[in-house]
Amino acid sequence: MLDLKSKIVDIPNWPIEGVVFKDITPLLQDAAYFKETIDRLAEPFVSAPVEVIVGIDARGFLLATAVAYKLGVGVALVRKPGKLPRPIVSRDYALEYGSNTLEMHKDAIKLGERVGIVDDVLATGGTLNATIQLIEELGGTVECVSVLIGLSFLNGKDQLGGKPVHELITY
Amino acid sequence: MLDLKSKIVDIPNWPIEGVVFKDITPLLQDAAYFKETIDRLAEPFVSAPVEVIVGIDARGFLLATAVAYKLGVGVALVRKPGKLPRPIVSRDYALEYGSNTLEMHKDAIKLGERVGIVDDVLATGGTLNATIQLIEELGGTVECVSVLIGLSFLNGKDQLGGKPVHELITY
Repeated sequence: MLDLKSKIVDIPNWPIEGVVFKDITPLLQDAAYFKETIDRLAEPFVSAPVEVIVGIDARGFLLATAVAYKLGVGVALVRKPGKLPRPIVSRDYALEYGSNTLEMHKDAIKLGERVGIVDDVLATGGTLNATIQLIEELGGTVECVSVLIGLSFLNGKDQLGGKPVHELITY
Repeated sequence: MLDLKSKIVDIPNWPIEGVVFKDITPLLQDAAYFKETIDRLAEPFVSAPVEVIVGIDARGFLLATAVAYKLGVGVALVRKPGKLPRPIVSRDYALEYGSNTLEMHKDAIKLGERVGIVDDVLATGGTLNATIQLIEELGGTVECVSVLIGLSFLNGKDQLGGKPVHELITY
């Protein structure tokens, strides 16, 4: 098993003072590390199968679609405001730094659909909690949240309503 | 072979008057159409193998990383301004509507690396031409540009310096 942390670079005080940003681009660029990341992110969905993977704009897209391809399912998008052209549902949420709004197309999730969420980082949980709310508003059931990085000191898991969380590495 | 066009929705006058936006989210959400899209985007890289796939922020990420996963290579990112925390190269470019800047980390491409570009739409070619320039500035060689949609009436291929272009569907 590869040491995924060895390919993640800490960037102190970025994008704002006091935040240590985790730069995953060296991991994505390395074929072996990228493949192992996708394979391990997909693992929880073997025992808890899903019909669609949700990916979150923009870095989440990098991991979610490759996991969806591996699992043989489709991918539904959570986007930043103003990017989706058809009828949407939306949620405001608090970020580790600042605040934002997330949107999904109303037809992104079917009633009763089993859904997996794949993202890069679980920080405060604001983004992922808003994503769960959007999916549930559309009638989907979140089976598992699978993330590359968990920042355990921010206690983001507490914000996810008891959903199973699968973290490949934690800080 | 599936009719990929049947899962793409025309959105007239979006994001601005006079532009017909191609909404690919119904295609991404459908497991069979999504799989066939990724498999067909990867085809040119069988005869022209590459060491890394470049994905363009943000919709390009959706297709590029799944293609990279299928091919067993890594993925390097072209991002909108201010998203990459380490030393970068950048290019200004003209869009079908408006203008923008694209950035890559200086270590995203290795000297002499064979590179494939995967994106959603080839419109005027501004985004893809800027991407080719960034890759070449870093010493990479673009083997092929593989896109889901080509808008042939905008003549974007003429802007790509003769690079091979693989389009799954054209309008």
